[in-house]
Amino acid sequence: MPTPKTPSRKNDPAGLRRRVLDVAAHAFQSAGYAATSVHDLVREAGVTGGALHHHFPSKKALALAVISERVSAEVTETWIETVRAAPSAAEGILTVFERTIAHLDTRGAVQGCPLGNLTLELALADVEFRDALAAEYAAWRGAIAERLRQDGAAYVQRDPDGFATVVVAMFSGALSIAKAEQTTDALKACVPRLRWMMDLPA
Amino acid sequence: MPTPKTPSRKNDPAGLRRRVLDVAAHAFQSAGYAATSVHDLVREAGVTGGALHHHFPSKKALALAVISERVSAEVTETWIETVRAAPSAAEGILTVFERTIAHLDTRGAVQGCPLGNLTLELALADVEFRDALAAEYAAWRGAIAERLRQDGAAYVQRDPDGFATVVVAMFSGALSIAKAEQTTDALKACVPRLRWMMDLPA
Repeated sequence: MPTPKTPSRKNDPAGLRRRVLDVAAHAFQSAGYAATSVHDLVREAGVTGGALHHHFPSKKALALAVISERVSAEVTETWIETVRAAPSAAEGILTVFERTIAHLDTRGAVQGCPLGNLTLELALADVEFRDALAAEYAAWRGAIAERLRQDGAAYVQRDPDGFATVVVAMFSGALSIAKAEQTTDALKACVPRLRWMMDLPA
Repeated sequence: MPTPKTPSRKNDPAGLRRRVLDVAAHAFQSAGYAATSVHDLVREAGVTGGALHHHFPSKKALALAVISERVSAEVTETWIETVRAAPSAAEGILTVFERTIAHLDTRGAVQGCPLGNLTLELALADVEFRDALAAEYAAWRGAIAERLRQDGAAYVQRDPDGFATVVVAMFSGALSIAKAEQTTDALKACVPRLRWMMDLPA
């Protein structure tokens, strides 16, 4: 009779932690941090208050985990990996805009930028929130700047960091407008300007 | 003996309404809409619950007034009037970026874009909020596009609306990054790119 390597357990702490993070990430994005109570999260995740508290001793600890695990993963998947894998920084940047437009047009609803949403609500509330959010912007800009540097792109005019910052600002701001308008028009307006800024044919 | 045209009154409904709007506009920007209770506003404005309710029958009515009166006035003063009064659209746009950088550097704190802050919290909550926020973005973009059209600027490549949208996205997104970082670096990065996009000497 084979012996299971890990004993079968009724508890699944990793699964529970993941479930709480899923529910919290969704609630903080859709309703907002302040509008979400720990009680709501306990109910929606189907966990006990004690179990939630064991993994996340405070609502703030939970929000910091949402930033450093969930928002970070979205920035990495959407932006960092795409820009790294593309034939050039310019093509990677345009791919992200185009994929985002296609995704939002299919879904028919714009929830905004996960990082922008939490930044606008939390950056002034607390220095730990601010540092966590600033670290995500830094990683995002840094990956674009690094790729621009590798390409030796002339259009960045010896300032890949500044250029990367403008790309991030355009994306983030266009997603805010898109959220207010519930259309992707603002993201679409960025595409020809980005092509032009990056010396690509129109 | 001169007769006062309006009788002296203990009540000052216009002043009271203004005071409530002042307090609410500040609280919704700094703490957020969800995190602010009507009870907080009553206390901070030094008014009775009944008086507040007389002017604003709901918290939502109060937020709609903050958008259409206070946020709107900030967009008008900061952007619309500046772009209209400047020698050209390009100079107006750069003036707003430069004044905003100087203002934030002096103040030493970045609270973000008043319209962006409320958009990210409220645009999905309710269609009336969304319509009110979208109207402010439309007025902002519209004023820039109109000025670009008047200038007949070649750099907009026959799409003044798209160009205006990108300017608004850059400003709004750069203010989000600035809020996370509590520096004006992201706004500063936009200036040389805007000069370049608008055919102005570096």
